[in-house]
Amino acid sequence: MKISIERGTLLKAVAQAQSVVERRNTIPILANVLIEAEGDQVQFRATDLDVEVVDKAPAQVERAGATTVAATTLHEIVRKLPDGALVTLTADNAAGRLTVEAGRSNFSLATLPKEDFPVMASSEYQSNFSAPAAVLRRLFDKSKFAISTEETRYYLNGVYMHVADGETGKVLRCVATDGHRLARIDADLPGGAEDMPGVIVPRKTVGELRKLLEDDDMQIAVSVSETKVRFATPDITLTSKVIDGTFPDYSRVIPQNNTRRMEVDAADFAKAVDRVATVSSERSRAVKMQLDQDRLVLSVNAPDSGAAEEELAVAYDDERLEIGFNAKYLLEIASQVDRENAVFMFNSSGDPTLMREGNDQSAVYVVMPMRV
Amino acid sequence: MKISIERGTLLKAVAQAQSVVERRNTIPILANVLIEAEGDQVQFRATDLDVEVVDKAPAQVERAGATTVAATTLHEIVRKLPDGALVTLTADNAAGRLTVEAGRSNFSLATLPKEDFPVMASSEYQSNFSAPAAVLRRLFDKSKFAISTEETRYYLNGVYMHVADGETGKVLRCVATDGHRLARIDADLPGGAEDMPGVIVPRKTVGELRKLLEDDDMQIAVSVSETKVRFATPDITLTSKVIDGTFPDYSRVIPQNNTRRMEVDAADFAKAVDRVATVSSERSRAVKMQLDQDRLVLSVNAPDSGAAEEELAVAYDDERLEIGFNAKYLLEIASQVDRENAVFMFNSSGDPTLMREGNDQSAVYVVMPMRV
Repeated sequence: MKISIERGTLLKAVAQAQSVVERRNTIPILANVLIEAEGDQVQFRATDLDVEVVDKAPAQVERAGATTVAATTLHEIVRKLPDGALVTLTADNAAGRLTVEAGRSNFSLATLPKEDFPVMASSEYQSNFSAPAAVLRRLFDKSKFAISTEETRYYLNGVYMHVADGETGKVLRCVATDGHRLARIDADLPGGAEDMPGVIVPRKTVGELRKLLEDDDMQIAVSVSETKVRFATPDITLTSKVIDGTFPDYSRVIPQNNTRRMEVDAADFAKAVDRVATVSSERSRAVKMQLDQDRLVLSVNAPDSGAAEEELAVAYDDERLEIGFNAKYLLEIASQVDRENAVFMFNSSGDPTLMREGNDQSAVYVVMPMRV
Repeated sequence: MKISIERGTLLKAVAQAQSVVERRNTIPILANVLIEAEGDQVQFRATDLDVEVVDKAPAQVERAGATTVAATTLHEIVRKLPDGALVTLTADNAAGRLTVEAGRSNFSLATLPKEDFPVMASSEYQSNFSAPAAVLRRLFDKSKFAISTEETRYYLNGVYMHVADGETGKVLRCVATDGHRLARIDADLPGGAEDMPGVIVPRKTVGELRKLLEDDDMQIAVSVSETKVRFATPDITLTSKVIDGTFPDYSRVIPQNNTRRMEVDAADFAKAVDRVATVSSERSRAVKMQLDQDRLVLSVNAPDSGAAEEELAVAYDDERLEIGFNAKYLLEIASQVDRENAVFMFNSSGDPTLMREGNDQSAVYVVMPMRV
């Protein structure tokens, strides 16, 4: 294999590959990126056996072929080469070396045989559809904060993407929860997605997917089977196993009959919560919300270090209510609100509370209270 | 005590205090900042028993007095208050509380009695002089990278500031070394500094001092005794114990008779060293320099992962020379050069090498070679 490729193009492709590669792994070839050159194109493929990314880039291919080389080393080298450099990659498979040349720099890297690289088996996908990057970005960005990190509840370690019944028909829905809070985000159902099986997209895949979704107008091709999900742009294909488990019936968790409504400026609310939480150094800081007619008092009481209180003007027209929450959870859901005021729907101080943006039902958050 | 103070002014003073406070310490009051209000001024004092910082700020003092409160908590609170807020601090020493009020926020923090706060004993200083911030900044910025982190060689854990004989008379000199590399930086001797005893300024003090030196035109008042050093702006006074030890005779380490001269663009050199070092993941990566007539080849050979080589045009007019260095050390000294080309003076491949900026003798670096 011998190819020449512009440094910026190479960097983009290799950056995506090295981020999928696991830092610590016991199988040496999993640290490598598979480089395959043919026609006027080169492909970079990296995997951790659960997620695979393939990145295509245009290149001058002088001699077709393939090899594998340490992804992080190649990424570091390319990153440090000067802007605009033309990089030549030459594989000498007999010697087990890949030469990287640019200007007066010359690197010779150890390779492993391309035959040893575990290419993910291709699958039959039951459902194929396409969705704008902006739509997928919203679905995953607004839900991922609630993904559980508890390994024992492995079926909560991802975002549950499925078709559901929305207010006005079928929707594409993403749900994540860790048992303490839940996010449920809906989007219009893309054509062709009607029969999509529900899948739990793992946390790492959600992170890698995010990098494909920067360009608002890009159409993302989505393919889903019972065991795999694939997201593709014209240049990048991300394939991932899905979590083999059953996502719990979240609908029972979402309160339907909470009637006490509070509306508050989301940014002011988040800042105030952040401030009052400062006095406590505990990991699970409880913030008390005390609601009266159009008035919210946030307070924290940490017997050792001190106390804090802050008053906010809100819209509230119901009975006096006192309810406590984990400060971090309150902050995280408040920071999801990007357009309108945050609307909280309470029941009693012991019941789950619902939060949404204005009257928009397409993004709904639930947070469990804490005794204060 | 009751004072009102502008949030920005308070933040600046408290930020300086909390950075001196040690995160983990067994004496509770050392986590606190001593706040003393009198006249139209408030003073914030923090210490770790080795370094003390006192920051003065204007305030409306309604009731003079003093108290102590957790420095990091106060800093966090003030940081999160809105820009331009007026902050009122009210101490209730009987209840052991400090109230912090701003707008609709109200905090009550636990205090400790001001009597328990260890104020650093005042000292007689043998030498008092003043120097522009820019001069002190250069002395410490260009030497601190070479400070040793080995605790057993405690006398190398700082910058040795002393009066020395320069090329054209007495100079104010800062020296740091860890045994592998050395930096020697000179400045014109300020009036009044002639009799200054040589002192080893500890690493932490150098870091705190740096924050006082941002304003080029500021005159810094420096006071030195055998045991302490003090740096002061009109608002901030930083007092520090000096390291109780003897700095080794560094002059013997600085090669006088290195005659092989190489001149190279410092930025190009640093980038090339950084690139070739990429192929090795070892902590002490050796870079080989191979010098011929006006030509430098940098190379790294890591048997497991690969090899790298890069050629640079340099000015060199002497015998062929091969010499190896720790990549990190080469990078660090090359990045000290800010104006001119880097000039290296070599002897043999086993001897220390000298580096300076052009023909400037006021900043000299020495680096020990490595066998390659």
